Amino acid sequence: MKPTSPVRRVSGTKQGRAAPVAARYVQIRAVSERLAQPLSAEDCTLQSMPDASPVKWHLAHTTWFFETFVLETAVAGYRPFHPQFRTLFNSYYVGVGARPPRAERGLWSRPSLEEVHAYRRHVDQCMAKLLTASAFAPSLRALVELGLHHEQQHQELMLTDLKHLLSRNPLRPVYAPPKPYPRVAPAKLAWLAYPSGLRRIGHAGSGFAYDNERPHHRVYVDAYEIASRPVSNREYLEFIAAGGYEKPEFWLAEGWDVRSAQHWNAPLYWERHRTLWRAFTLHDTQAIDPDEPVCHVSYFEADAYARWAGGRRAHRR
Amino acid sequence: MKPTSPVRRVSGTKQGRAAPVAARYVQIRAVSERLAQPLSAEDCTLQSMPDASPVKWHLAHTTWFFETFVLETAVAGYRPFHPQFRTLFNSYYVGVGARPPRAERGLWSRPSLEEVHAYRRHVDQCMAKLLTASAFAPSLRALVELGLHHEQQHQELMLTDLKHLLSRNPLRPVYAPPKPYPRVAPAKLAWLAYPSGLRRIGHAGSGFAYDNERPHHRVYVDAYEIASRPVSNREYLEFIAAGGYEKPEFWLAEGWDVRSAQHWNAPLYWERHRTLWRAFTLHDTQAIDPDEPVCHVSYFEADAYARWAGGRRAHRR
Amino acid sequence: MKPTSPVRRVSGTKQGRAAPVAARYVQIRAVSERLAQPLSAEDCTLQSMPDASPVKWHLAHTTWFFETFVLETAVAGYRPFHPQFRTLFNSYYVGVGARPPRAERGLWSRPSLEEVHAYRRHVDQCMAKLLTASAFAPSLRALVELGLHHEQQHQELMLTDLKHLLSRNPLRPVYAPPKPYPRVAPAKLAWLAYPSGLRRIGHAGSGFAYDNERPHHRVYVDAYEIASRPVSNREYLEFIAAGGYEKPEFWLAEGWDVRSAQHWNAPLYWERHRTLWRAFTLHDTQAIDPDEPVCHVSYFEADAYARWAGGRRAHRR
Amino acid sequence: MKPTSPVRRVSGTKQGRAAPVAARYVQIRAVSERLAQPLSAEDCTLQSMPDASPVKWHLAHTTWFFETFVLETAVAGYRPFHPQFRTLFNSYYVGVGARPPRAERGLWSRPSLEEVHAYRRHVDQCMAKLLTASAFAPSLRALVELGLHHEQQHQELMLTDLKHLLSRNPLRPVYAPPKPYPRVAPAKLAWLAYPSGLRRIGHAGSGFAYDNERPHHRVYVDAYEIASRPVSNREYLEFIAAGGYEKPEFWLAEGWDVRSAQHWNAPLYWERHRTLWRAFTLHDTQAIDPDEPVCHVSYFEADAYARWAGGRRAHRR
Repeated sequence: MKPTSPVRRVSGTKQGRAAPVAARYVQIRAVSERLAQPLSAEDCTLQSMPDASPVKWHLAHTTWFFETFVLETAVAGYRPFHPQFRTLFNSYYVGVGARPPRAERGLWSRPSLEEVHAYRRHVDQCMAKLLTASAFAPSLRALVELGLHHEQQHQELMLTDLKHLLSRNPLRPVYAPPKPYPRVAPAKLAWLAYPSGLRRIGHAGSGFAYDNERPHHRVYVDAYEIASRPVSNREYLEFIAAGGYEKPEFWLAEGWDVRSAQHWNAPLYWERHRTLWRAFTLHDTQAIDPDEPVCHVSYFEADAYARWAGGRRAHRR
Repeated sequence: MKPTSPVRRVSGTKQGRAAPVAARYVQIRAVSERLAQPLSAEDCTLQSMPDASPVKWHLAHTTWFFETFVLETAVAGYRPFHPQFRTLFNSYYVGVGARPPRAERGLWSRPSLEEVHAYRRHVDQCMAKLLTASAFAPSLRALVELGLHHEQQHQELMLTDLKHLLSRNPLRPVYAPPKPYPRVAPAKLAWLAYPSGLRRIGHAGSGFAYDNERPHHRVYVDAYEIASRPVSNREYLEFIAAGGYEKPEFWLAEGWDVRSAQHWNAPLYWERHRTLWRAFTLHDTQAIDPDEPVCHVSYFEADAYARWAGGRRAHRR
Repeated sequence: MKPTSPVRRVSGTKQGRAAPVAARYVQIRAVSERLAQPLSAEDCTLQSMPDASPVKWHLAHTTWFFETFVLETAVAGYRPFHPQFRTLFNSYYVGVGARPPRAERGLWSRPSLEEVHAYRRHVDQCMAKLLTASAFAPSLRALVELGLHHEQQHQELMLTDLKHLLSRNPLRPVYAPPKPYPRVAPAKLAWLAYPSGLRRIGHAGSGFAYDNERPHHRVYVDAYEIASRPVSNREYLEFIAAGGYEKPEFWLAEGWDVRSAQHWNAPLYWERHRTLWRAFTLHDTQAIDPDEPVCHVSYFEADAYARWAGGRRAHRR
Repeated sequence: MKPTSPVRRVSGTKQGRAAPVAARYVQIRAVSERLAQPLSAEDCTLQSMPDASPVKWHLAHTTWFFETFVLETAVAGYRPFHPQFRTLFNSYYVGVGARPPRAERGLWSRPSLEEVHAYRRHVDQCMAKLLTASAFAPSLRALVELGLHHEQQHQELMLTDLKHLLSRNPLRPVYAPPKPYPRVAPAKLAWLAYPSGLRRIGHAGSGFAYDNERPHHRVYVDAYEIASRPVSNREYLEFIAAGGYEKPEFWLAEGWDVRSAQHWNAPLYWERHRTLWRAFTLHDTQAIDPDEPVCHVSYFEADAYARWAGGRRAHRR
C-alpha cells in the first residue's frame, strides 16, 4: 500500500498504541470510514464469493461487536439501534444466536450504506460516553481493546475482499490512483544460517494479543537456512518461464490437482498481455515490477517455487 | 398489481398502441424509470439468483438494445456511449459477440446506477432525433417496435426479480406502500363447456407480435370444460389443509421429487405464522386474502391441485 | 442391432403378440436373460450415471413388477421371495412405499446376480402356475400384459445403460462380436409433401397400449414436407466438416449452452482418430459407416443439423 | 478386529519383519487375497464414494506397484501383463503418466476379479524368481520393502472402504461372522502427567520407514497430562445424552458447520433403534458395547467430546 493511499493509517495506528483507549477508538474507527470513502454505496454492497463479505457488512459487523459485547453489557437499559441487527451482523458467534448464512451477506441492499453509517455514529456516541466515564471496568477495557483489533483485522479484509470484487468487473474499476514510489532493486539473495535450539514464541507481555498469539511458549527449532529477502517477481517469472506450472515434479500432489482444476498459470490477479504480464491492483492494472516481492501466490505455488529454486533441500543429518 | 402502484402504466401503454412511435418510445421508456424510482442504487445492483438480473442491468440492457440494433445501424458515425457496454449488457445475442456469464451480472458495482441513467438519457436523445426525422425506414420502425416490447417484457422482469431479491432480506423491505382496493368475493365456480373443433390461434394482424405468437395457425381442440374463474386462495388453502402437499397420489412423479428436494409446503412467498398464512409482497408482508386468486404456484402445484380438486378427470370417450 | 445378436428376439416377440399369454411370458422373460448372458456378474452390477441402472437391477425390477402387482394380488397367502426386495427394487411407484434413491442402485453388490436369477426363477414358477390356471381374471391379464411390455422397455434400457457403462471403461470391452451385414447405400434424399388436415393418432384398438399412447385423438397438422429417409452419417459428417458445431447461428440458445458446457463436437460415442471418426458400439469400436443413419444425436444436434441443411425453412403462409 | 477374522495376519506380519524378503513377500501378498476371499466379484468391483476404491482396484494397484517399480526396472525385457494396466492402476504417481480420475475406479467391470488374480499370480511368479536370484541389488530391496508396506497400507484401506460400501446396502451384508471375545471392563480413567522437555521422535533405525516417519528429529513438548486409556463407548454415550451434539459451545466453528451440514448425531455407522444404539460393523450390526473404545469419530467430534469432558483445560501458566 502506498504512503498516501486511504489506508495509510492502518499501520499508523500501531504507533499510537500507548494513547488512551478513547482516543484510539476514535482513530481506528475513522480508518474504516476512510477506507470506504472512495467507494459508492453499490461498491460497498456486493459480495463476490462466499469467503468474502461486502464492505458495508464489515462496517456494520465491527460496530455490532461494540454494541453487542460492550454496550449491551455495560450500559444499563441500552436499547439496540435496530432490533434485527444483532442477528444480521453476527458473523460466527454461535453463542449470540442464529445468524444468516455467510454466502447471503451480498443479498442485502438494506440497511443502506447510509443507515450503516448512522449505526456507526450511534454506537460511537454511546462508546464515547462510556470510554470517558470515570468508572471504567478493566474487563470492559479488554473487550474494547479486542474490538479495536477486531476492527483492524476487518480493515484488512475490506481491502482484500474489495480487490477480489473489483477484479471480477470487466470495466476494471480503480479504487485509488497509483502513486509514484521509489523503486529499489532487491539486494542479492543470500542464505542466512541459524543454529538449532529452543526458542520462545508467542505473546509474552501483558498487553493485547489475539488468541492465536498465545500462549508464550517454547519450541525446538532445528538448524536451518532462510533467504535474506522475499522472492522477487523477476525470480518468480523465471519459474514461470521454466515451465514451473506445467511440471508436476515440483508440486505437492494436492497442489497439482488444484492447479489443474483451476487452470493456474500465474499468481492470482496476474494477466498475460501477449508477452507481458500485468497485475490487477486497487490502483489500476499495472505492469509487473520485477523488483517487487511476488505476492498473491498460494501455499502450493510457494512450495513449488521453493522446490524448483532448490530452496527445499533434502534433509541432511 | 394495485391501480396506483408505480407499475400502473405497464398495462396503460397497451391502450396507446396507436400513438406515434416517438411518443410511445418516451412513454414506455419512462415506465422503466418510474419502476426503479422507489429503489436505491444498492437495490438496483444486486442479483439474488442466476435466473434473475439486477434492476440496473435491466435498465442498461434495454438501452443497449436500441443502441446496438437501431442507432449503430441507422446513425452514420454513431459513437457508442461506452466502448464496453456492447459486451457488458449483451444478454444472449450470440451473434453480437461474447457476453459475460449471466450469473455474474450481480458482480458489477460499476457502471453506477447514475451512469446507467446517463446512458439512458444519451440513447434517448439520439433516438428522439431519429424518430422525429422525416426519413424513417419501415425496417427500422419494426426494430424500434420490437425494442419497446422488449423493454416492456423487462419491466415485468424488473418487478419479478426485485420481489425475489427483497424476499431474501431478513429486514423484509417494502417496495411501495399497500393501497386499499375493493375486495370482491369470487363468484361461485362454474364449469364452462366448449365443443371440439378447429380453432385459430396466434397473431393474425400486421402489427407487432413476439416471435412465439406467430404464425397464425389452426389447432384442433377436443371438447373440454374450463373453470369460470381462477382458483382462489381459500380453495387452495383447502388443498393445503387436506394434506395436498403430503400425498404423492396427487402429484406427477417429477413434481413430487422437486417438492421433496425443495421442501415445498405452500406457494412461493407464503409463510406460516402459527396458524395463519401470510405472503411476502412488494407491498409488505400481508395476510393471505382468501378471495384473491392463488398465485406463485408452479406447474407441478397447479397440476396437483387440479387432480385433488377433481379438475383433471379421466378421459371420457 | 445385428440379426444374430443376443437381442434379436426383442423385435421378434412383436410377431408373437397373438400367442397365449403364458407362452409369451416365457418368451419375453427369456429375452432379458439372453441379453444378460454375455455379461459377468461384475458387468451387471455397475451403474455409470444416475440416469442409468445396473443390468442386475433391471432383471430384478421387472421381476418385482410381477411379484408386487400380480402375485401379491392374485395368489392367496403369497410369501415374497425376500422381504426387502419390495423396497429395494421399487423404481418410482410412490404408492408402493419408500424406495432407495435412483443414484444408489449401483451401490449394491448384494443380492448377487445369482440370487437375482433365483428370484426370477421363483417368480416365473409362480407365474406359470397362475397363467395356466383355469380361472384367470381379465383385470389380472391386463396387468400381466403391462408387465410384459414393461419388461420389454427395460430390455431396451439394459442395452442403452450397458453401452454407456462399457464406454466409460478405458479397456473398451466388447459386448458381442460384430457380424457382417449387407451394406446398403441410402437412396437419394427426397422431400415428401403432405397436405394439411385432421389426423387421428394414438392407440385405437382394444389391445395393450402404454398410457402415453392413449387416448386415440385427433390433431390438426399443417401442410409439411418430410425427408424420405433418415439423415446418413455421410450427411452428418458434412455438417461437422462445415463447422456446424462451432456456429451458434444454427443452434437454439439452450442447445448452444449445453454444447459449450459439455464440449460437444460430434454425436455421443464418436471418437476422432486423427482424420477418421470411429464410434464405440456394443460390438467393438468401429469406423463410421457413412451409409448408416446417424444416431446418438440429441434434440439440439438434430435441430442444428436441420437448420444447417435447410430443412427448417421459414414458415410460408 | 477379532483374532480369527480374515485379517488376523495383518498384524501378524509385524512379527515376521526379520524374515527373508522372499518369504515376507509371499506372506504379505497372501493376506490381501485372504481379505478378499469372503467377497464376491461384485463386492470387489464397487466404489461407494470418490475417496474409497474397489477391493479389486486395491488388489491390482498393489500389484502394479511391483510390476512398474521393480519388474520393469530389474528384469531385462520384461513384458507387462497387460499394456493398459500401467495407466489403469496408477493411483497418483504423476511421473508414471496419465491416470484415470479416482472417482471412476468404480466404473470398471473389466478387468474381472479373475483377471486381476491372474495378474497377481503373474507378477508374483516374476517376483519370486527375482527375489531368490543371487544378485539382488540393495536399491531394489528397498523398493520391494516399500511395496510390501504399501500393500499393507492398502490392506487397511480394503477393509475401511469395504465397510463403507456394505453399510450403504439396505440388506446390510455381513463380511465375516462375529466371534466371541473376552469383554474386559475398562480400568478407571486416570490422568498421567508428563514433564516438559526435549523429546526425539521419528524413525531412527536403518530399517524401513514411511517417508512421513522420517527424519528422526527433536521436538520440545510442554508439560501435559494424558488419559490412561481411550474413551469408552459408555463415556461417549454420556456426551450424547448430555446433548453434546446440540451445543455449539463444545465445538470448533468449522466442526459445528460440518455437523450441521451432515446432520451428525453420533459416530459414523451408529444407528439408533428406539432407545438403543447399534453399530454397523463388518461382523453384522451389533449393540454398542459400552466397554469398548469409541471409534469412527472425527477430529471435530473428538475435540468436542474432550472439551465437554474437561480434557481441554485452559492453559495454566
